[in-house]
Amino acid sequence: MVKINQNYLKLPGSYLFSTVGKKIRAYESAHPEKRVIRLGIGDVTRPIAPEIIRSLHEAVDEMGRAESFKGYAPDLGYAFLRETIAENDFQSRGCRIDPDEIFISDGAKCDCGNIQEIFSTDCRIAVCDPVYPVYVDSNVMAGRTGVYDTELGRFRDVTYMPCTRETGFVPELPEEDVDLIYLCFPNNPTGAVIKKSKLQEWVDYANDKGAVILYDAAYEAYISEEEIPHSIYECPGARECAIEFRSFSKTAGFTGLRLGFTVIPKDLKAGGIRLWDLWARRHGTKYNGAPYIIQRAGQAVYSPQGKKEIRKQIAWYMENARIISVGLEQAGYEVSGGVNAPYIWLRTPGDMTSWEFFDYLLEGANVAGTPGSGFGPHGEHYFRLTAFGNREDTLEAVKRIKKL
Amino acid sequence: MVKINQNYLKLPGSYLFSTVGKKIRAYESAHPEKRVIRLGIGDVTRPIAPEIIRSLHEAVDEMGRAESFKGYAPDLGYAFLRETIAENDFQSRGCRIDPDEIFISDGAKCDCGNIQEIFSTDCRIAVCDPVYPVYVDSNVMAGRTGVYDTELGRFRDVTYMPCTRETGFVPELPEEDVDLIYLCFPNNPTGAVIKKSKLQEWVDYANDKGAVILYDAAYEAYISEEEIPHSIYECPGARECAIEFRSFSKTAGFTGLRLGFTVIPKDLKAGGIRLWDLWARRHGTKYNGAPYIIQRAGQAVYSPQGKKEIRKQIAWYMENARIISVGLEQAGYEVSGGVNAPYIWLRTPGDMTSWEFFDYLLEGANVAGTPGSGFGPHGEHYFRLTAFGNREDTLEAVKRIKKL
Repeated sequence: MVKINQNYLKLPGSYLFSTVGKKIRAYESAHPEKRVIRLGIGDVTRPIAPEIIRSLHEAVDEMGRAESFKGYAPDLGYAFLRETIAENDFQSRGCRIDPDEIFISDGAKCDCGNIQEIFSTDCRIAVCDPVYPVYVDSNVMAGRTGVYDTELGRFRDVTYMPCTRETGFVPELPEEDVDLIYLCFPNNPTGAVIKKSKLQEWVDYANDKGAVILYDAAYEAYISEEEIPHSIYECPGARECAIEFRSFSKTAGFTGLRLGFTVIPKDLKAGGIRLWDLWARRHGTKYNGAPYIIQRAGQAVYSPQGKKEIRKQIAWYMENARIISVGLEQAGYEVSGGVNAPYIWLRTPGDMTSWEFFDYLLEGANVAGTPGSGFGPHGEHYFRLTAFGNREDTLEAVKRIKKL
Repeated sequence: MVKINQNYLKLPGSYLFSTVGKKIRAYESAHPEKRVIRLGIGDVTRPIAPEIIRSLHEAVDEMGRAESFKGYAPDLGYAFLRETIAENDFQSRGCRIDPDEIFISDGAKCDCGNIQEIFSTDCRIAVCDPVYPVYVDSNVMAGRTGVYDTELGRFRDVTYMPCTRETGFVPELPEEDVDLIYLCFPNNPTGAVIKKSKLQEWVDYANDKGAVILYDAAYEAYISEEEIPHSIYECPGARECAIEFRSFSKTAGFTGLRLGFTVIPKDLKAGGIRLWDLWARRHGTKYNGAPYIIQRAGQAVYSPQGKKEIRKQIAWYMENARIISVGLEQAGYEVSGGVNAPYIWLRTPGDMTSWEFFDYLLEGANVAGTPGSGFGPHGEHYFRLTAFGNREDTLEAVKRIKKL
């Protein structure tokens, strides 16, 4: 008699974004005359840049001709893309990362979700609170978290690291022993960043304790300030303790094209075993490579023309972020994020809970965002807005909020 | 101190196809004047059909315009593709499968590898012997197989179902209790198919025992004989016990584009829980959808023009299969497969082992294939050739083998 993976039943019933979606749809059908502006979900809206479109067409044509047709991609990705990434994202910043240490995939979400598989199920994980739900949920499925404590809003065997305004939404080193530490900078949902000296403390701590840092740098391209590290490998010692996740989704609008990569340095070992070997084995067994045409599109992101167009696109979104931040500040809100990240994190006014503010904003201004408490208990009394809307909607949303 | 997933260390050291590759390269560098023809790995070689290329260009253009740009795809796939599949692959054959029961993915390999996650780690798996390595390896990683017995060439806690010429390479129902049964028809590596009456026995057996059949139908498009079922859902009762995997890889040359799907009927439950819900939760948490442009290409496969072009492509490969089968029979080999599948399975001559025959063929005819023993102990004394080479090479390979 077949049995299911019982860990799945520990997952909280409803996913944050589906609850948000339901509430918006319910409001809209009760008020068909109102137009709700959605600044909730972190999906891009600008079309793919012309140079990338050009490279896609070129690669599609290659697939249509016998002499240039490509079948299965190399398991770990095409050399042309891995070399381009190593040079542009790492070597240019003084990080020693070889092309061979880069694993091309169909996105950072898959890699962040799957990476836990190569570790023992009795490893203890540490996550920021608030946090992107995938880190915790994928560990729940694997049986690493214990049961959910409804009162506390937490899994019993997970170490939550509070991210509060007092520390600029950067966590403190955990007091208890942990094995796998998820860090995400620039952060989703808070938009916070970490300084190099602070990140170095984490690297030193992990090396000291024999822990591994799982560093999600999906929003790296939004960093605008000089002193903020773009990669954890800018910190000495990170090659021995850190795995880094990157994505083309927000960098170049690839949410609908699917491309990302994971860096595992060959110096990173646990019990004498290279994690590189385990991940390579996983890739070879359970994955079959990102499409050739998408990998060519990824390469185009790094061409001189591609870089120019991408910079313009990011600047466009960051102007949205500026509009929201400035507007909310003028309206008297306490606001953070939005400078090195496409997320604006605001304190709800008065004693409003995150969900109360959600309703207040939806009903009063017809603007939808994401309740901070959905990302964890320390997200309570906070709210996330994103810079990925179109300009007109962003301006209109700010105008409406100011009027509240 | 972080610990790795020790199950990974149970995997046999070297992957079949990398050993094959190494041996070919060693021969080539020792004999640079020889041209080795590769009929080993199952990768397609024909370019993508014109109608599919056209649809790719169209979808790429959509991604370049603000008004038609697509961000994140729906988790389970676009409705246009799911509806097309449900109608063409299932409803047209009298199978009651709703679009909602189809999960679009980036390939059957990923789905076959990941599906085991939703089941308990103490489920017992049953696999054919010989078998496609992904089914076993993904279960090794999850800790479901016990250790590898080097002498027997098997994992201790797996039920292997011998596929022999006596039963037309179709397995017999297992005598011991099993929970998850992997079946693949048309079969890789043997090219064998299963008749509907025989498949019905499996469906009845699974429903009787409370087991789940994981049915890999990646080569379904190669079925040429009338009485062979294209889907397990042609058998009454399969909606209560079977998951089916499909792929565009061999159907339409998508090995480099990446597209497949998994069917989980909503009637399929274990302990009262719908497996559909678990897989949907996994998709939502650890996956982010197949690229929009690739899903549009998948839709084009089912258009009248697409179907016409695909039929021609498959006929082209099957002519290769016929050339190999007939040629080998004329040369006195015992041959099966190649009629409803792109694989030809031959008995090695005399008492040669699979690897001895590999060397004999490589050195004597400069033709490379895949040793049957690499797929499991009952593959010993067999050898796999594929129909995916180009015509000239296929003809030349047969000519050389005949001369041996």
